[in-house]
Amino acid sequence: MSPARTEGDRKRGYIVPIGGAEDKDGTADILRRFIDVCGAGRSRIVILPTASTVEDTGRKYEKLFRKLGADEAKALPIGSREDAEKREWLEYIEKATGIFITGGNQLRLSTILGGTPVAKAVRRANAHGVTVGGTSAGAAILSEHMIAYGAEGSTPHAAAVTLVPGFGLTNRIMIDQHFRQRDRLGRLLTAIAYNPFAVGVGLDEDTAAFIDHARMVTVVGTGAITVLDASELSHSSIAEAKEGAPVTMTNVRLHVLAAGATFDLETRRAGARPE
Amino acid sequence: MSPARTEGDRKRGYIVPIGGAEDKDGTADILRRFIDVCGAGRSRIVILPTASTVEDTGRKYEKLFRKLGADEAKALPIGSREDAEKREWLEYIEKATGIFITGGNQLRLSTILGGTPVAKAVRRANAHGVTVGGTSAGAAILSEHMIAYGAEGSTPHAAAVTLVPGFGLTNRIMIDQHFRQRDRLGRLLTAIAYNPFAVGVGLDEDTAAFIDHARMVTVVGTGAITVLDASELSHSSIAEAKEGAPVTMTNVRLHVLAAGATFDLETRRAGARPE
Repeated sequence: MSPARTEGDRKRGYIVPIGGAEDKDGTADILRRFIDVCGAGRSRIVILPTASTVEDTGRKYEKLFRKLGADEAKALPIGSREDAEKREWLEYIEKATGIFITGGNQLRLSTILGGTPVAKAVRRANAHGVTVGGTSAGAAILSEHMIAYGAEGSTPHAAAVTLVPGFGLTNRIMIDQHFRQRDRLGRLLTAIAYNPFAVGVGLDEDTAAFIDHARMVTVVGTGAITVLDASELSHSSIAEAKEGAPVTMTNVRLHVLAAGATFDLETRRAGARPE
Repeated sequence: MSPARTEGDRKRGYIVPIGGAEDKDGTADILRRFIDVCGAGRSRIVILPTASTVEDTGRKYEKLFRKLGADEAKALPIGSREDAEKREWLEYIEKATGIFITGGNQLRLSTILGGTPVAKAVRRANAHGVTVGGTSAGAAILSEHMIAYGAEGSTPHAAAVTLVPGFGLTNRIMIDQHFRQRDRLGRLLTAIAYNPFAVGVGLDEDTAAFIDHARMVTVVGTGAITVLDASELSHSSIAEAKEGAPVTMTNVRLHVLAAGATFDLETRRAGARPE
């Protein structure tokens, strides 16, 4: 599945994966910036709490977004594939200027929402200029190839990661979250070893990648994002490696980017300062 | 301190950092290969167990090396700087074809042996063709800049690592061990961010880098080594970053190398197959 087509001169909306555990009580830099790119004081944000099985996850984000300056914030408590067809809720998505997907279990997102009118509406909205972001599981689901689960540790191993289809707002990146906190370099390397066309984006907690319509990534938050670019990969042994065996990968380009740094997904160039 | 000079046409001996927990009861690939490059059936191996405070560490390696085919294996139970001047023990080092440094606490190695006749004898021996290897703490001490301790996690942070002078057999690499098992990417990145001249070598457990006189690294063992080459680093924010703050680093080259793969420390080229 490719990203939904943008029409005419309309620009794709921001795609905003967040590494989880974003600050909510302090300066809340990430959520404030998210509201900004949803239209600031004129923003209407729809929250999809489907990944979470905690009942008040959606309501908490409703309150939070309103407190931080959003004009409207509405959680849609979609808990089943049937729910994901409700006309009333689809209308909220169609009128939204921003869509926020909470954390939880990303397989709930892919299994409950995958292929439903809600998933289609989210894809269409983003193609038409609406910002779509998510935290933790909500970040994982944004890309075409979602890491469902995998082993921890720095070294890539064959079968260290399980990829499943996500919402497919972009196929340029593979996203991993809680990156530093859960030691996920190995599984993200494994993911890009399978097919080096995508860029691996490992997000620390309280750290977000704001990806604009021109595919420029800007980092916001207190951690860093780790970018793995395998476009110059000269060798990967993953095709021959036995399950659980370490994988040789040569010539991966690595960038660690803290707040303000940028990465251009078109040219694959990192910039140390905001541009 | 630079590595001791080699004389005339004598070639420097192998330098063999091992990531810790090398196999001893199974195929023992690393220790067997170590004995091979010490002269196989004619090898005389001296063991330095100073990093360890467990009394029989040295004796265990004596038995192990003999069982695996070394001609002689002798542990020198050096526990103080005074011990490190004993004439009798220095003679063992002078006659050795291989020197093996056990695991434990690398600060015991630098504080007890640093600057003593034993450390000087080890440096001279390696310059004259004698293999010097070590596991875990014994690997850390081999290079010029030793990681004494540091934070865990994938993202480099200012002050995430403490470097102290090691034995200085090579200044081309910075070594970290138990790499995958203890999530040490961030601290090794921090170490090379301070001064990108060195190559970061992260060794998984049961994995060794055999570095020959021509500075070609060959990987042996069941894990992988992670090579971080910052020679093309275009930006590091470590000079400005506050303590504990994440560091931006752009354009680090990363290789993950499993058994048989090579890395040339002169040209900084990785090879996927044995050469």
